[in-house]
Amino acid sequence: METISSAKNERVKSWKKLQTKKGREKTGAYLIEGFHLIDEAVKNQASILEVMISEDLKESATISLPEDKKVLISKEISKQLSETQTTQGIFAVVEKKDSSRIPILEKPYLFLDNVQDPGNLGTMIRTADAAGFGGVVLGKGTVDLYNNKVIRSMQGSHFHIPIFRDELTKWFDLFKNAGFPVYGTELNELAVSYRDIPPQAIFAVVMGNEGNGMDKKLLEKTTKNIYIPITGQAESLNVAIAAGILMFALTK
Amino acid sequence: METISSAKNERVKSWKKLQTKKGREKTGAYLIEGFHLIDEAVKNQASILEVMISEDLKESATISLPEDKKVLISKEISKQLSETQTTQGIFAVVEKKDSSRIPILEKPYLFLDNVQDPGNLGTMIRTADAAGFGGVVLGKGTVDLYNNKVIRSMQGSHFHIPIFRDELTKWFDLFKNAGFPVYGTELNELAVSYRDIPPQAIFAVVMGNEGNGMDKKLLEKTTKNIYIPITGQAESLNVAIAAGILMFALTK
Repeated sequence: METISSAKNERVKSWKKLQTKKGREKTGAYLIEGFHLIDEAVKNQASILEVMISEDLKESATISLPEDKKVLISKEISKQLSETQTTQGIFAVVEKKDSSRIPILEKPYLFLDNVQDPGNLGTMIRTADAAGFGGVVLGKGTVDLYNNKVIRSMQGSHFHIPIFRDELTKWFDLFKNAGFPVYGTELNELAVSYRDIPPQAIFAVVMGNEGNGMDKKLLEKTTKNIYIPITGQAESLNVAIAAGILMFALTK
Repeated sequence: METISSAKNERVKSWKKLQTKKGREKTGAYLIEGFHLIDEAVKNQASILEVMISEDLKESATISLPEDKKVLISKEISKQLSETQTTQGIFAVVEKKDSSRIPILEKPYLFLDNVQDPGNLGTMIRTADAAGFGGVVLGKGTVDLYNNKVIRSMQGSHFHIPIFRDELTKWFDLFKNAGFPVYGTELNELAVSYRDIPPQAIFAVVMGNEGNGMDKKLLEKTTKNIYIPITGQAESLNVAIAAGILMFALTK
């Protein structure tokens, strides 16, 4: 196995570039960290380009990848690559896989309009996966899927369900033309409580921006707007919590 | 209004100490930041000891507090006090108010066992508030309520509902002796789907540690254990998402 010990090595520099959106866009690849995510990547046949293993890590043998993809790195490099406080000392470069082929609509979908917090985005994708959703569509303004905080909070769910980055209006039409409802989430006079919506097999639910909610133009195109009744004094719910409540309540 | 412009001023040092758990415990006070939280503190009659206003902030007049509690601070001090990237330049020192009097049980309660992530804790308290819960009990190992990330994600909900730090076993007995169920959350052979639990007015639900779940000894004392059926490939849900789904599904 090759060994790299200088943090000034060109490959180390190329890995560190993947910590930025620009670097990821240029190369079409992103970084993952830790055994769980690398296991998920292997299990789900993601295209793993390189695995970097810290020299103080002994359990590396458990990763079933060809030797020529593995690189041994110094503890110092491992520290520089890590974006967590307690790193496991194992990383991989994975090729981005953008979903673009329009799917057969046979499951519910989550549409995200301008969601900006990486933790919220990752958690919503993980929850959509758990709730048996068919996929997630990231609309305009939504944070980069391959941001390290998004990657961490998804816990591998982007390997399980397709994630699209696309114009939401196109997907609204897709669902509505096929006769499936698209639920917006905004509290307005016409909005109905989610408790009054019967669970169903195929629909889309849209979550909006953390501060400003859904785009007006999208709101006009929804089948119906739903809200979560708040009985206490909190002004609102965190967007990922609201998404979780809705995804589990609306599915059978 | 008094003005402080040196970051080495003793009062600035005392404020910065409130950024640590030790400092908060020593003084019995904590820091809040931003107009929304200060508004909430005023509205809910929290005991505000001081308000620090950055010299470049012009809207300070909107805070209805006696002038002798306000201190003008330099931009540099404001930057040092802030724990956000884009500070509003307004802060307050608030006296801790620990809830200790055992309440009349007339609403559901959330019990938290060893929850370690500040964002999760804050979000769960905000959600409990939104769902109309009577209070939250923080059991052993649960992160400090006055940690700045907890404060930020609660969005003022600790001003709305009582938060206790106490032995959970005591609260288990309290609910069970009064004839109200205490639901644990762990997937074991005897666990039932939350969808099979009818909504009810008074109960407690326990959420456990992010990695290890609930303490074994507590699990043995629950009325019933419930789980959220996962239909996709995700291994689990984020604890705050699971709490949100359960709190809204189990309440009327």
